[in-house]
Amino acid sequence: MYFYYERFGVIMNEKLLHTPEGVRDIYNSECGAKLMLQNNLHHVLEHYGFQDIQTPTFEFFDIFSHERGTVPSKDMYKFFDREGNTLVLRPDITPSIARCIAKYYREETLPIRLCYIGNTFINNTSYQGKLKEVTQLGAELINDGSIEADAEMLALTVDCLLKSGLEEFQLEIGNVQIFRALIEEAGFTEQDEVSKLRVLIENKNMFGVEEMLSAKDMSEELKKILLQLPELFGSLDILEYAKGMIKNSRALEAIERLEKLYNILSIYGYERYISFDLGMLSKYNYYTGIIFKAYTYKTGEAIATGGRYDNLVGQFGKEAPAIGLAIVIDQLMAALSRQNLLKKPEAQNTLILYKEELRKEAIILAVNLRNDGINTLLLKAEDDKSQEDYLTYAKRMGFGGILYFETSQEIKVIEAATGNVQIANVEELIKR
Amino acid sequence: MYFYYERFGVIMNEKLLHTPEGVRDIYNSECGAKLMLQNNLHHVLEHYGFQDIQTPTFEFFDIFSHERGTVPSKDMYKFFDREGNTLVLRPDITPSIARCIAKYYREETLPIRLCYIGNTFINNTSYQGKLKEVTQLGAELINDGSIEADAEMLALTVDCLLKSGLEEFQLEIGNVQIFRALIEEAGFTEQDEVSKLRVLIENKNMFGVEEMLSAKDMSEELKKILLQLPELFGSLDILEYAKGMIKNSRALEAIERLEKLYNILSIYGYERYISFDLGMLSKYNYYTGIIFKAYTYKTGEAIATGGRYDNLVGQFGKEAPAIGLAIVIDQLMAALSRQNLLKKPEAQNTLILYKEELRKEAIILAVNLRNDGINTLLLKAEDDKSQEDYLTYAKRMGFGGILYFETSQEIKVIEAATGNVQIANVEELIKR
Repeated sequence: MYFYYERFGVIMNEKLLHTPEGVRDIYNSECGAKLMLQNNLHHVLEHYGFQDIQTPTFEFFDIFSHERGTVPSKDMYKFFDREGNTLVLRPDITPSIARCIAKYYREETLPIRLCYIGNTFINNTSYQGKLKEVTQLGAELINDGSIEADAEMLALTVDCLLKSGLEEFQLEIGNVQIFRALIEEAGFTEQDEVSKLRVLIENKNMFGVEEMLSAKDMSEELKKILLQLPELFGSLDILEYAKGMIKNSRALEAIERLEKLYNILSIYGYERYISFDLGMLSKYNYYTGIIFKAYTYKTGEAIATGGRYDNLVGQFGKEAPAIGLAIVIDQLMAALSRQNLLKKPEAQNTLILYKEELRKEAIILAVNLRNDGINTLLLKAEDDKSQEDYLTYAKRMGFGGILYFETSQEIKVIEAATGNVQIANVEELIKR
Repeated sequence: MYFYYERFGVIMNEKLLHTPEGVRDIYNSECGAKLMLQNNLHHVLEHYGFQDIQTPTFEFFDIFSHERGTVPSKDMYKFFDREGNTLVLRPDITPSIARCIAKYYREETLPIRLCYIGNTFINNTSYQGKLKEVTQLGAELINDGSIEADAEMLALTVDCLLKSGLEEFQLEIGNVQIFRALIEEAGFTEQDEVSKLRVLIENKNMFGVEEMLSAKDMSEELKKILLQLPELFGSLDILEYAKGMIKNSRALEAIERLEKLYNILSIYGYERYISFDLGMLSKYNYYTGIIFKAYTYKTGEAIATGGRYDNLVGQFGKEAPAIGLAIVIDQLMAALSRQNLLKKPEAQNTLILYKEELRKEAIILAVNLRNDGINTLLLKAEDDKSQEDYLTYAKRMGFGGILYFETSQEIKVIEAATGNVQIANVEELIKR
């Protein structure tokens, strides 16, 4: 792991330059693009009336434990505080928000809208270069169990994705009550059994599913529906089709909720971004109603996910229906970038280059330009460097241009992109 | 640790509502104020031409190890990756930036300006409710060893603090070369000895200092200077005074650098915010030149710190002089708040309240208002709640007002602060 840096004549530990597996540095225009994207999406959340909240980067393990229905314990980064309590880097922010609702909004019965931008950490076994630290932007609408609330969160997701610059995407919507009602009817009651069945369905291992179903005493009709569930996805028609097949009243109710949701989303004019997936499942067990995932082309992972979780806040001591969404900024960036749609901030920096004897004038000019809202850098010209050297530097750094203070009367105004030079009067530039 | 939530009839683990020692939730107007403050300061950094960078929340332990001169190992949160490497939550961001410079800007010889906003984590033994997770906003100017660069970073610190709304503050400036040159002359060469002496001076334990000095063979004159060093603070005069007393040429050079710095800061017009502390020391061993700390009244801790670290980037394989500053947003917020200077975002949210049969019109109005840049919330009116209930809710949540959709022709426009009601025409409001 050691190699020789010939250039600097030092023995270096190679690891010193590396970041741990699955985390990374974001710099240059990528970082500017990320912050611009975050800000744009945050404005959309504000327009819907969501208010910011920040929770700690690490919490007590119990907040994210198995009962909460978040990610598996083995996938969390764990460590200890000085008192020996187990702490975890948050793998998800929704349980933290649920905790805050129970703590700070205990008496509130009317809707609460909270939003956040924060990093989450999942210590998955490395494969496909999956990121272990990502930035999530999320919104949670609490104390509102209505279909209108479901529709609002979906419309908000569409508005965020449109604002990001994405042109083609689909929101796939499911309802966890369909699967739950059907397997309950089929006699699956043990949590472990249900989880096993869910994993088989997610992996589309239909032989395994059939084997599990055959072990239970159920009607052939129900078995047929359960085996067909993973294929029940598509546009509005699929809801009609499923209603003709399914007899279970709780499952039917869940499907009807999706129909009503579609009707409200039509008022927003967003029905074209919507499709349904009646067999959709989630790794988060805390969902209790509609769930959704947004996809676009050239990326396999969902760029946004969300769903209704009416029992999670109750685990912290306050009964409150709720629905949330989360957009993984890193996923969205990757999708935008692959589709050549990622907006980058424009080069606007101006470099003031000055001869040492003109330092005072250069500083005064910089102060003036900054007061005018112009991003201005100061650099003392060195004798061993030419104007050409500085022009190359300006291009390399993405500056807009150079103001070269060569004499106390005149400034050379050099455009970085073209290298074109014009002469400006110092006094006029300062007076501007 | 268990208590009974009578209201909800469930047995709850009290810890479920708590955050670990030293970390906290930030919500309601405090969170809005924090984000507004961060954004305002970030604009100042942009005006000076700094470009954003993000580094991972955790890194390999080696990045922050003893040789780097950052915080003590025992004060870092440590854990393991799947390969058994030790990871730490970053206690400081400067070493990460130094790593990035050596990795991504290896060939660059002209100045690089990077800035960041990120959280840092120090697992100090709990006392005085000191925060263990804070948000830092920082800037690093690399490849520039000039006094002009020192002055720029100090002017930038002043501009940030002025922008925050703070009115009275002082930047105390020292130079680590003064202490280093003098103790080297006095015969202290062992790192452990030097650290011990530094701690005694920081704790103003002058008996302990005298004891350590007496064990060495040095001139009475040098001993006198070393004992007096902690008292050498004040305005420009103190530099003259020290120059009259100190003979060590390296220490004198370090004092002269402070004089030149003062002259450049006078061009910025910021000399009134400056004072000197020739005995100032830092817990960070990586500093090699000027160091500074900003203080204001009603808060003991520094609200901004920084200094020159010309050897740190070299430890990662690229020789590069550098100077950085960091503002602890949480400290600055606390100071602003105690001085009644903290700016909070204004209440601008509008609540559209509608009867179920007017849902379509309400959604269309909301879409229109949001498109006009107005933060708009939607809420279906419930029969068991009165207009007064909703007005109280609007006040509680800090909304600006309510648009109450009671009939399809008329909307009641209710101002939250006064409760005043006016009637608006639906069609006109939608056309607006």
